[in-house]
Amino acid sequence: MSSSHPVLVVGSVALDTVETPFGRREELLGGSATFFAYAATPFAPVRLVSVVGRDFPAEHEERLSQLGIDARGLERADGETFRWTGRYEGDMNVAETLDTKLNVLGTFDPKLPADYRTTPFVFLANAHPANQLSVMDQMETRPAFTVCDTMNYWIEQELDGLREVLRRVDGVVLNDEEARRLTGERNLIRAGRAMLDLGPKVAIVKKGEHGAFLFSMLDFFALPAYPVDSVIDPTGAGDSFAGGLMGSLARAGRVTLARLKRAMIDGTVMASFAVESFSVERLASLGEGEIRSRHEEIVQFLSL
Amino acid sequence: MSSSHPVLVVGSVALDTVETPFGRREELLGGSATFFAYAATPFAPVRLVSVVGRDFPAEHEERLSQLGIDARGLERADGETFRWTGRYEGDMNVAETLDTKLNVLGTFDPKLPADYRTTPFVFLANAHPANQLSVMDQMETRPAFTVCDTMNYWIEQELDGLREVLRRVDGVVLNDEEARRLTGERNLIRAGRAMLDLGPKVAIVKKGEHGAFLFSMLDFFALPAYPVDSVIDPTGAGDSFAGGLMGSLARAGRVTLARLKRAMIDGTVMASFAVESFSVERLASLGEGEIRSRHEEIVQFLSL
Repeated sequence: MSSSHPVLVVGSVALDTVETPFGRREELLGGSATFFAYAATPFAPVRLVSVVGRDFPAEHEERLSQLGIDARGLERADGETFRWTGRYEGDMNVAETLDTKLNVLGTFDPKLPADYRTTPFVFLANAHPANQLSVMDQMETRPAFTVCDTMNYWIEQELDGLREVLRRVDGVVLNDEEARRLTGERNLIRAGRAMLDLGPKVAIVKKGEHGAFLFSMLDFFALPAYPVDSVIDPTGAGDSFAGGLMGSLARAGRVTLARLKRAMIDGTVMASFAVESFSVERLASLGEGEIRSRHEEIVQFLSL
Repeated sequence: MSSSHPVLVVGSVALDTVETPFGRREELLGGSATFFAYAATPFAPVRLVSVVGRDFPAEHEERLSQLGIDARGLERADGETFRWTGRYEGDMNVAETLDTKLNVLGTFDPKLPADYRTTPFVFLANAHPANQLSVMDQMETRPAFTVCDTMNYWIEQELDGLREVLRRVDGVVLNDEEARRLTGERNLIRAGRAMLDLGPKVAIVKKGEHGAFLFSMLDFFALPAYPVDSVIDPTGAGDSFAGGLMGSLARAGRVTLARLKRAMIDGTVMASFAVESFSVERLASLGEGEIRSRHEEIVQFLSL
């Protein structure tokens, strides 16, 4: 671990209320930065920038430090923590958002601690494009690899800002619907290529239980998802994928096509664990052997 | 080709009227046996058993023989040819059936020409389970590999017969919805395994643009679809997949896990060509080089 390069994530920390066919849970630890950090930490040192309110349970913060996640960038603001309430039905591919209370996230202006500003691997989780740009502006050295996510809301409401973000990042990771919305292409292959025209050298399209596509100028790679036979709660799968991906690249220390493919497998592994429990329960209790063996399992079922 | 083992398909020959975002076409050559035969013939000698009416255009039958497809099993019955009318919208993953006229297919009782009865590779396309059983009963030697397809209608209306078919075949190829319906499992991994409990040694689940899964007692293999960037008409994709699959196995002459994986790639290749045009247009004009190079492209984008 100590030989790995660190990875920085800027995103949300949330308290989620989630309803799936397996039950309803309240005030679960959630948020993009949380899932990302839990998924990346087995691979590389993680630095987290986010905000919570005065009501945020101390135990969650203690758990982060127990896992070795550097959360000095987690601001505690006056007000309440961001809350999301959602429901999954049927094949659980799509979350229905029942309620969103931004609370302290609504006025969040991310500030990077001084020693975060040279982090070589940076993930800009879904956020207002102005916040994503602000993070890039605060970096003192150009990161080796910066990747962003976004969501339909920003594609519709803040497209100019988002385009500026896309011109400046190295990679973008979107789900299939976002990729279609951003590019106006219904066909995912066209959508993936069109994403590259917006600036990034690498575009990854996440397709949930159907895996992920990788697009770069010269290459295309298709990876099926790990076949999870008991999906308990899909919340956080996408951010866990991103966490495994970026953690894996940070551990490798460099970004090549071969490394990206292996990193996508690590992302797939972490997403598969994430959905096997509510919140970060499964991610939090993972052993290195479990991660390695699921990675090898995927390599195995890809092999001809 | 002459060194390949022959493959037998029993299924439908249809005249389709299809509406996609790319236009509306009437009286197109279609049907499961047709797409299967066109997709399998580049790999192995194909024997076709089906029925058409007096109205079936002679040119279609001539085309079959030009392609070297043995259609002595194509019965011409009094009445009209089976007709299907369907529409695709949006992402074109699901066909909306607007009209079905079984016509001569409704009373079809498949009769295998004598020299078809020792064919080593047999595909029972979607049909009444009694017809599928009748074909198996007519075989004089036990085929090396018999595979069946079905559809939701038979799962709901003729489950006992279908279960008997499944006990007797070696493999089954269903799409995701049929796999779920047959097994009552929403999760595709559980569904795939449950299919094996019904008898077949090999179960393949087709997921359209999301690829296909292979299940056998000891193995699991996941294959993404070929990334077609211009889908004109998805009709026949599943049967073209089956045709490429069975043709490829027949050419290999034996069924091993490694051969099955390669055959699934050939199935994927033929399905990808099938959807690039209306009807069998693209399949009919394929060169061997095109098939081989798309196969290699898939191997390439699977490789780590």
